[in-house]
Amino acid sequence: MQNDVLALAKALINRDSVTPDDAGCQPMMAEFLKPLGFNIETLPFEDTLNMWARKGHQGPVFCFAGHTDVVPPGPLEKWISPPFKATEKDGLLYGRGAADMKGSLAAMLVATHNFVQKHPDHKGSIAFLITSDEEGPFINGTTRVVDTLEARNEKMDWCLVGEPSSTDKLGDVVKNGRRGSLTGFLTVKGVQGHVAYPHLAENPVHTSAAALDELARTHWDEGNEFFPPTSFQISNINGGTGAGNVIPGELEVQFNFRFSTEVTAEQLKQRVMGILDTHQLNYDLDWLLNGQPFLTAEGELVSATRAAITETCGYDTELSTAGGTSDGRFIAPTGAQVVELGPVNASIHKINEHVRIEDLRLLAKAYESILEKLLT
Amino acid sequence: MQNDVLALAKALINRDSVTPDDAGCQPMMAEFLKPLGFNIETLPFEDTLNMWARKGHQGPVFCFAGHTDVVPPGPLEKWISPPFKATEKDGLLYGRGAADMKGSLAAMLVATHNFVQKHPDHKGSIAFLITSDEEGPFINGTTRVVDTLEARNEKMDWCLVGEPSSTDKLGDVVKNGRRGSLTGFLTVKGVQGHVAYPHLAENPVHTSAAALDELARTHWDEGNEFFPPTSFQISNINGGTGAGNVIPGELEVQFNFRFSTEVTAEQLKQRVMGILDTHQLNYDLDWLLNGQPFLTAEGELVSATRAAITETCGYDTELSTAGGTSDGRFIAPTGAQVVELGPVNASIHKINEHVRIEDLRLLAKAYESILEKLLT
Repeated sequence: MQNDVLALAKALINRDSVTPDDAGCQPMMAEFLKPLGFNIETLPFEDTLNMWARKGHQGPVFCFAGHTDVVPPGPLEKWISPPFKATEKDGLLYGRGAADMKGSLAAMLVATHNFVQKHPDHKGSIAFLITSDEEGPFINGTTRVVDTLEARNEKMDWCLVGEPSSTDKLGDVVKNGRRGSLTGFLTVKGVQGHVAYPHLAENPVHTSAAALDELARTHWDEGNEFFPPTSFQISNINGGTGAGNVIPGELEVQFNFRFSTEVTAEQLKQRVMGILDTHQLNYDLDWLLNGQPFLTAEGELVSATRAAITETCGYDTELSTAGGTSDGRFIAPTGAQVVELGPVNASIHKINEHVRIEDLRLLAKAYESILEKLLT
Repeated sequence: MQNDVLALAKALINRDSVTPDDAGCQPMMAEFLKPLGFNIETLPFEDTLNMWARKGHQGPVFCFAGHTDVVPPGPLEKWISPPFKATEKDGLLYGRGAADMKGSLAAMLVATHNFVQKHPDHKGSIAFLITSDEEGPFINGTTRVVDTLEARNEKMDWCLVGEPSSTDKLGDVVKNGRRGSLTGFLTVKGVQGHVAYPHLAENPVHTSAAALDELARTHWDEGNEFFPPTSFQISNINGGTGAGNVIPGELEVQFNFRFSTEVTAEQLKQRVMGILDTHQLNYDLDWLLNGQPFLTAEGELVSATRAAITETCGYDTELSTAGGTSDGRFIAPTGAQVVELGPVNASIHKINEHVRIEDLRLLAKAYESILEKLLT
């Protein structure tokens, strides 16, 4: 198979792999890695395909982590080219997954190929942890592979996730952690009734308005050197029967915290319930902890990544923990150092997703440079 | 046709007249009234059937007002008897419309029959204003009949609406007015975004919570001798895409005022907008004035009704303006005195709607007594 980042990215993009369908991407990657000395393990769970590929039996273990699945393309007629037919135009490569994250997968393959050619006897091991369930419910993907590795005491020391971390130009931002995510499902209970007889009813929209205002205004923490302040957002609110003359009996509110390492999920839960209780609300509240915050403050991986970007791109990178969740949250708890480095994320999940072709070449070089620094 | 309130009520209930279907009720009433000397006018508008029946050419004009339509029965299996098959049980008459308001229509017919038999040369006129669109959109019913009468300068002096006004026993409450009803449709505008990037979004649920709290806590007036304080209720609130990671771009809020004669609809609109502006919200706000408040504080009709109840029932009645809207709101602006007297309303619009059979007989006597006091 051709050792060319553009050709590899195109071949991956042309596979219509909407979550959880891998659509042949992982087998293609496996065919590329086998001749380099990788042992391939296919780990399907339910509807999800996962791959654990490893070259070497010794530590330290450097792992590339990523996903082959992509989000749906949206309205096809709005794309300048078919989303699953990779198209070059003005130095850009268009297609669903170009930036998130099939371009990164291609760069990982090329970097590994070039590194192994130059250093066939490198120290430690190189691994790939690839899933087809990152954009979906993330139940049968990275988390189950990690469980499998943990069960047999197979450890990663350094994990580089190919998520599109860059903001304006390749490598300007590296993610060295992510905030935690905690979702609350609140049902405020009242008493349904007719608007003409409010004394016989209790309107949960009225009783909860002050509490929601207080939740929205609360400063949960100040953040710290690595994390912005914890944020609270109501994502959904629904009350009422649709009829204009009925006082609703319940109000449903869904909210989400993105939280720093300055608070715990448990503390946030207690503080929310404290506010609801202060306002004497009658409520049910269910919680979903989408992910704990994680942080790789410093270490060999952060140092190697910083240095590789300076060398390859000619400017320094910035460490950040902003943005959404990533599968790094499942890997960091094993004790591995985790950073995320990938293309500019401005077009991800949007119509006409694209990546600079030159950035893919730079990214492959940066990845190779990181391997050089850690495994030679 | 039989001059028996129970037989007439049953015959009306057995006609399945869900709004706007009259299902033959008005023709049946017309057949009853014609031999008594009534001139019948059928006034159909769109899907609605209306009847204006009048006996006499002189003033003063006493009018019975009511509706033949009923609300849907709901789940049939929960009824103890078929909703459109009037059924006697333990002194009660069950069926959809038994209390709201086919029982009242039957009582009006019997009262008129007996009064005309005794006083063939009564003074003034007796009229019936009957519609099949009271429970529905009230566009093609009473309001259009009133328009027709106004256009030819035909006036009512006294109007008795048969709405079920009673609370615990027949005639314990008479409605001598109703609050106004004003509905607001509010859209608070924000900026949609990802919950992980709140600084790029503006959450309309957050920005409006304090304003909704202030609206819910505001005392709009103190009411007066005849009206309870004006009330504000949010009936529907909806924001969010359904997704847990999206900050909604808009919040939709529907609310309703039931207002006294101490404020005007225009004043309420100005005060609501003042509160929204104080909280610096970006919003659209549409209004629907469902009905102006009306009041018949005193006069011959109120006096006659009070006296008739004391005579017939053996206790005094209470005047009230509480409760929902009624078609009285369309009649009162013509200058007519309007009161509402009908059966106990505890079961209206519910499963197993019913009325005490004895109450129908008492109601017919009370109606007849009112005619006696006003037209002899």
